[in-house]
Amino acid sequence: MSSEFELIELFQHIGAEYYKENGVLIGPGDDCAIFDLSTPIITSVDSSVVDIHFPSNASPQDIGYRAVAVALSDIAAMGCRPIAFSLSVSSPVTDDVWYKKLAEGVEDIAKEFEISLIGGDLTKGPLNLNAIVYGTPYSGKILMRNTAQPGDYICISSPTGRARRGLNDWKNTNNNSEYLTDYLRPLAKIELGKTIVNFASACIDTSDGLLADLGKILKLSECGALIYLDDIPITTDIDDINSGDDYDLCFTVPKDKFDNNYFKIGEVTSDRQIKLISNKGYDINIKGYEHF
Amino acid sequence: MSSEFELIELFQHIGAEYYKENGVLIGPGDDCAIFDLSTPIITSVDSSVVDIHFPSNASPQDIGYRAVAVALSDIAAMGCRPIAFSLSVSSPVTDDVWYKKLAEGVEDIAKEFEISLIGGDLTKGPLNLNAIVYGTPYSGKILMRNTAQPGDYICISSPTGRARRGLNDWKNTNNNSEYLTDYLRPLAKIELGKTIVNFASACIDTSDGLLADLGKILKLSECGALIYLDDIPITTDIDDINSGDDYDLCFTVPKDKFDNNYFKIGEVTSDRQIKLISNKGYDINIKGYEHF
Repeated sequence: MSSEFELIELFQHIGAEYYKENGVLIGPGDDCAIFDLSTPIITSVDSSVVDIHFPSNASPQDIGYRAVAVALSDIAAMGCRPIAFSLSVSSPVTDDVWYKKLAEGVEDIAKEFEISLIGGDLTKGPLNLNAIVYGTPYSGKILMRNTAQPGDYICISSPTGRARRGLNDWKNTNNNSEYLTDYLRPLAKIELGKTIVNFASACIDTSDGLLADLGKILKLSECGALIYLDDIPITTDIDDINSGDDYDLCFTVPKDKFDNNYFKIGEVTSDRQIKLISNKGYDINIKGYEHF
Repeated sequence: MSSEFELIELFQHIGAEYYKENGVLIGPGDDCAIFDLSTPIITSVDSSVVDIHFPSNASPQDIGYRAVAVALSDIAAMGCRPIAFSLSVSSPVTDDVWYKKLAEGVEDIAKEFEISLIGGDLTKGPLNLNAIVYGTPYSGKILMRNTAQPGDYICISSPTGRARRGLNDWKNTNNNSEYLTDYLRPLAKIELGKTIVNFASACIDTSDGLLADLGKILKLSECGALIYLDDIPITTDIDDINSGDDYDLCFTVPKDKFDNNYFKIGEVTSDRQIKLISNKGYDINIKGYEHF
């Protein structure tokens, strides 16, 4: 097997062609990377642990792509432009080919979003990836979680539960399922964030489940909500609203700025309760995905 | 056991008192943290994997402290001021007390360097910590690895091999060893970096072994070196120069700027070889710590 330093070479130049536009003064290879931007920098980290966040038999390409995608989703939720990422990989694998394929998946997403890999760490250990992402506002505004207002509409952009279905289909080796990609290569909704930043009042990405994540917006905004269960687009059944990994954006919009490009699933209220309304007789307990 | 969200609470406010001076506009709690600084931002990530980077029977306080310290060492090596960090923790532990103690160790280092915790991730999995650190230059200059010049002196600030001895003493349950702290709670040499940034020509931290890390400076600077083995301060034996985890800074200084506060261990040369010189008959193969 190649040395640690040779393996790092596989990743070293990913996205180097975008350094300049991304404000990257120094990429990987020194003790730190250096950004030089005149605008604020936003950053987040997401762990991807084998058998928790992705199945152990996923392809290395998908593992690499997915680890970065789920972190980029946090940049999308702030309505910002992604500029760069770091990737820390702990792996027990001793086969060079596996690392080459991992790097291919990472390169796929770097090219898709024109972002630069600026650093990382490579160690032996149980399979565990940490993607650190960096972004900057498109213009001045950054979407937050704590700024929803009573009366705002609550929106999502696509049916919930697609990733859950994808994971189930993967487990059932249904290789032709249209949902596999939703789970294995989730689309970071950067374009959506870029659009809605202009009129949304608050936003979060739905990684832990639609209701759980919406709950965070409401808690931080000190509001409640009426949720029209019958209006939530689902994939399998109503429990989709408690299933994680969709990486859609859930956002609130002042009534007068709402348009029909999105699914309206409820309204923000001034009391601090979440009320679920259904004429179909749905009975739902609010719970999101918890890692413990 | 508490929920993921309750455990996150233990870490949420660490270093919040330093947000303003550190340019932290938004700390943990949203999808991303936000920096707003007019100066460049440097960043690095370091993984700490159980039984590879620290022993499984280390205290949670030391595990937390050490994970951040080794990452801060990269900020020191650039001669910069640390401002913030994120911490991603994968852990199989289900005991709340363990997380409280981990947070104590993390808080220790946050207070020591007046840095702010700005984010992280907490997941179930084999024990694996990733510390992401952020810094900014004290004045204009940032120390790099690729800027050593032929004729420069090569320096370190303290005896090499202290961490190696500490780890051995830990394994031998020699609990009174003065070296334990060197391994379990390494000092990030931020103050040293702040001093030498004014006159050093290049710098790296010695995490993989003194000779291996010096080799990186020389390779990137397209230089070689004469190393005076007899002048290298050691702790146990000459193999200390190949032992990792010291987290000292190894730096080069133009001859006319050298002062006797540091150990001069060699000189940069214009050929691209590393020559080891010894009158004591040392015979050393250059090898550093590799994770694979």
